[in-house]
Amino acid sequence: MKIIPSDPAEARLPLSEQIRQGKVLDPNCPSREILRHVTSRWGLLILIALCDETLRFSELRRKVGGISEKMLAQTLQTLEEDGFVDRHSFPVVPPHVEYSLSPLGLEMKDQVAGLADWLEFNLHRILRQRELRVVGEE
Amino acid sequence: MKIIPSDPAEARLPLSEQIRQGKVLDPNCPSREILRHVTSRWGLLILIALCDETLRFSELRRKVGGISEKMLAQTLQTLEEDGFVDRHSFPVVPPHVEYSLSPLGLEMKDQVAGLADWLEFNLHRILRQRELRVVGEE
Repeated sequence: MKIIPSDPAEARLPLSEQIRQGKVLDPNCPSREILRHVTSRWGLLILIALCDETLRFSELRRKVGGISEKMLAQTLQTLEEDGFVDRHSFPVVPPHVEYSLSPLGLEMKDQVAGLADWLEFNLHRILRQRELRVVGEE
Repeated sequence: MKIIPSDPAEARLPLSEQIRQGKVLDPNCPSREILRHVTSRWGLLILIALCDETLRFSELRRKVGGISEKMLAQTLQTLEEDGFVDRHSFPVVPPHVEYSLSPLGLEMKDQVAGLADWLEFNLHRILRQRELRVVGEE
């Protein structure tokens, strides 16, 4: 994957450094694809749901309100491939599978939870501002 | 908009408190819609692009690599409605319009930049882990 620095100052950085530090604003940088997985409609909610506990598939589905079985399975697979979620399968009948944040996912947890917490906590201000804007336009 | 607490312990909280603190995992909570705007494919990249400067439409389009004019206009409008982005229109010919983070957007900036920075900085680890996973599966 080719990284094309758009800023001439960055072009002077060694290539290894340019690659090591991704640039999400560059359409050719793989960090953008990963950002999309992490912040996809369901990806982010699944990460938030796993922030403070290990959950089975059915428990995750109940916790992330509104997600379909298909989208949950698909999104979990992407997050597993990116290395943010660990899947533990126990050899029992009926099958017992648990999902948790991986060590990498745990490191990212503060960033993900930070954004969700900020939005939840400031929701009343955002909604009030929206109302004021509508009134102002009338 | 009705908030239905899924946890019985939350149901005991006063309604004002339940509404004030949104619950992104609840499909009926308006915070989820706002989370989707903020973390939409282009919404997040536009917020990141505006983190450290005020930009004109054409400058924003160059900075957020790969975005179409239509998607940029549409996403800017949503971010404006949510109150995260301010639009300054100067009464000159030809029209001069600038976009910047609003005071609310500036408050959210650390959360948004935190996630993007973490991903950019740790990209090499994520990509290496992905490769190891592929090798492990072979």
